[in-house]
Amino acid sequence: MSVVAEASELEMVRGTRRVLLLLTGKWSVEVLYLLANGTRRYTEVFYEVGEVSKKTLTHTLRTLERQGLVARRAYPEVPPRVEYSLTPLGWSLTGPLMALYEWSTENLAAAPRLRLVRDDDALAA
Amino acid sequence: MSVVAEASELEMVRGTRRVLLLLTGKWSVEVLYLLANGTRRYTEVFYEVGEVSKKTLTHTLRTLERQGLVARRAYPEVPPRVEYSLTPLGWSLTGPLMALYEWSTENLAAAPRLRLVRDDDALAA
Repeated sequence: MSVVAEASELEMVRGTRRVLLLLTGKWSVEVLYLLANGTRRYTEVFYEVGEVSKKTLTHTLRTLERQGLVARRAYPEVPPRVEYSLTPLGWSLTGPLMALYEWSTENLAAAPRLRLVRDDDALAA
Repeated sequence: MSVVAEASELEMVRGTRRVLLLLTGKWSVEVLYLLANGTRRYTEVFYEVGEVSKKTLTHTLRTLERQGLVARRAYPEVPPRVEYSLTPLGWSLTGPLMALYEWSTENLAAAPRLRLVRDDDALAA
């Protein structure tokens, strides 16, 4: 792990945690993956994500927009049309997200359920 | 993004979120990076992490152990010696974590503060 030795450990921890915290919203990852397949209208996002209220979805999209990961474009039409897509920053995050996903498919499937314990769960136990 | 098209989006979301949730403990990432530099005794972890209470650190280490990411080894000596190290599963996670860290160094430093907003912060705003 030469990379670990090169960078200040504290810098690495802070940087990594900032990304993790960006993504802790329940639907953030789902919306990012959805938009990685292409631009979507609001109603398309709503129906494709599923099991999410419009209030929560709107909040998620606004947060992703403020984070600079998703771009919103409103067309002055009747009826109004609003489209969402990934920004270049959002696109750049899909690589690290895929690395996490690939790790999960390679490792979590075979791991006992115990290993999936969340920190909060352990705290409550 | 051919990989996105190949896998079920729901599978990807679930897998990725499971990894994210594994790491939401405040000190989990810090301990993983520390142990990536080599095996440490309990007191070494305590002093090198810094700013953490022994109660919280012990909880973090137990959680990482239950998750299968960290191995604890107690030596029957006087005084007792307890060492912590990464398991093969823990080692395998350092790659995806480094990808997140590298993304943060490349992107977050130049991004306006607004972009670092947490989902929770936006909810409170």
